[in-house]
Amino acid sequence: MPMPASDLKISDLLGIELPIIQAPMAGVQDSALAIAVSNAGGLGSLPCGMLSPASMRDQLERMRAHTNRPYNVNFFCHQTPAADPRRESAWRAMLAPYFEELGLEIGAVAAGAGRAPFSDQAADVLSAFKPPVVSFHFGLPAPALIVRIRSWGAKVLSSATTIDEARWLEAHGVDAIIAQGREAGGHRGMFLSADVTTQMGTLALLPQIIAAVSLPVVAAGGIVDARTAAAAMALGAAGVQVGTAYLLCPEATTGAVHRAALKSEAARHTALTNVFTGRPARGIVNRIMREIGPINAAAPEYPLAAAALAPLRAKAESLGLGDFSPMWCGENASGCREIPAADLTRELAAAFASR
Amino acid sequence: MPMPASDLKISDLLGIELPIIQAPMAGVQDSALAIAVSNAGGLGSLPCGMLSPASMRDQLERMRAHTNRPYNVNFFCHQTPAADPRRESAWRAMLAPYFEELGLEIGAVAAGAGRAPFSDQAADVLSAFKPPVVSFHFGLPAPALIVRIRSWGAKVLSSATTIDEARWLEAHGVDAIIAQGREAGGHRGMFLSADVTTQMGTLALLPQIIAAVSLPVVAAGGIVDARTAAAAMALGAAGVQVGTAYLLCPEATTGAVHRAALKSEAARHTALTNVFTGRPARGIVNRIMREIGPINAAAPEYPLAAAALAPLRAKAESLGLGDFSPMWCGENASGCREIPAADLTRELAAAFASR
Repeated sequence: MPMPASDLKISDLLGIELPIIQAPMAGVQDSALAIAVSNAGGLGSLPCGMLSPASMRDQLERMRAHTNRPYNVNFFCHQTPAADPRRESAWRAMLAPYFEELGLEIGAVAAGAGRAPFSDQAADVLSAFKPPVVSFHFGLPAPALIVRIRSWGAKVLSSATTIDEARWLEAHGVDAIIAQGREAGGHRGMFLSADVTTQMGTLALLPQIIAAVSLPVVAAGGIVDARTAAAAMALGAAGVQVGTAYLLCPEATTGAVHRAALKSEAARHTALTNVFTGRPARGIVNRIMREIGPINAAAPEYPLAAAALAPLRAKAESLGLGDFSPMWCGENASGCREIPAADLTRELAAAFASR
Repeated sequence: MPMPASDLKISDLLGIELPIIQAPMAGVQDSALAIAVSNAGGLGSLPCGMLSPASMRDQLERMRAHTNRPYNVNFFCHQTPAADPRRESAWRAMLAPYFEELGLEIGAVAAGAGRAPFSDQAADVLSAFKPPVVSFHFGLPAPALIVRIRSWGAKVLSSATTIDEARWLEAHGVDAIIAQGREAGGHRGMFLSADVTTQMGTLALLPQIIAAVSLPVVAAGGIVDARTAAAAMALGAAGVQVGTAYLLCPEATTGAVHRAALKSEAARHTALTNVFTGRPARGIVNRIMREIGPINAAAPEYPLAAAALAPLRAKAESLGLGDFSPMWCGENASGCREIPAADLTRELAAAFASR
């Protein structure tokens, strides 16, 4: 008798040893972290949403060279917004005093994205590597792109932040759903509503999504150690996705100001903010979030808000300040330690049996 | 060797059979619910913050007549705000179109509170009944009032919504702390900050409070059934506090529009709102929350915002509409069933051993 899908652990579904996914974290990691986690028996994730095709190919070659275990590649699938010169200039006007303070020229800011949605061009790169798992944030790409991914046998995952999103993903044919509770660091995966009041805590969201769909459901948000991982599994999760706890691992590329903040009391206060990219994401509260956010209606649509912040961030970071840096972090940073990602992966799994 | 306080279950601390507290819910319950839960082995709670001394005495007499088990009485301990005529008239101006729509006279609205903080007068009433547990919301009353409560041997509880609040409560000498995660229905117990971004999900808040204090910590927010209760206990909670799941019990006084909303799809979308009282509280999203909230900076200070809403609520409810009613509800209403509170209490405890 086949096991009901809802009892299937992601370790069985994805052919990995431990039901642990390392959350893809664009901007603070590359293949090194993913390789370490995959080799430790979890599912390492390579965030590709900010990579050019050439960089993506380079990173995928590293994955192939350094692990023969399953791994995940992650993409955004937002709609690229039309340019909105009025909104862009209002945003720059709001940031102008900071440019002045740091002695920067706001006219020099390049417009444009940096975050591209999944595309045929990206699928072309992937097809040479046939990654066994492809995950998405902000919904799913067009059906034809899913067909291309499935052509090499990849499993498809995406995040749900509401019960409605979980049902939508099930109807659109994903293999497993990541229930992203409000505690999670980084971008909310929300795609059916832009209303942040729809976003629930993991303890409320996870059991309701498990009850609403018949697919395996992975818990994300607030999973930081063996105990919280075991609690999620006891609630019926098919696995856990962990991001924040990996941020201080030597294999992560987390910047100096971000690392310092994670190790400080500052990490005890995070908030959902749209000022860094235009979409709500959870980060450590810093100066720009306090002064113009955390949510600001003037922020250009995702991902356009990011471009104007970039020079401020670079200049401030060169002075050792995280005032303009997105320092993504979940609501519990207590799992962050400077230990190898393999050790962290095995510790997370300590409280439940593998496979 | 004495057991470390942090390993003490609240069932041992409070002399009850099951580590379950029925959350005090002013406005939707009286002694009937508290009696049923205490007699079933949990800790029934009588919300006193909206009762006159005479009503409080009457309810306490019922408690005494119908249970010989421990029970809890609950009070608010906010600072009574000074009247602010300008703010009050701005608030009434904002509500005026609704008064017009419902054919009501806004001039007729009585100013004033309805929610009084704990006082010597309340302690006078209590002293004749010596309730074994007294819990507070919004911090703690003045030390002299705590001394009075302790004089008859009562245990003192209060809610923490942040790690700082938990440390503050420990320093001020409570016997146990209720870690109120953001999922919880009703008023946030926040008292050291008015910034709602400080409020965390239960899965993040609970383990961090347990790590920060050496007192027993009760989990609240998202605990709706045996499985979520067991998960909280596995995370190290000394007990669980459950509110929303009791709202449909026959012993609750939950009104008709509130009951109907709890049974409908509407209960899937709750939000923190200040429009009903002036303080953030979680309720089912309804017309007034959508149209002027969920957070509105013009709302008079707690509890003054409530008075102007009262006639709108009464008139709308008489028409079968919950458009202006606070319909408190946590982020998971799936535990709400029309079953006796005793049955619910025993079901909640099914997944972990008593005492």
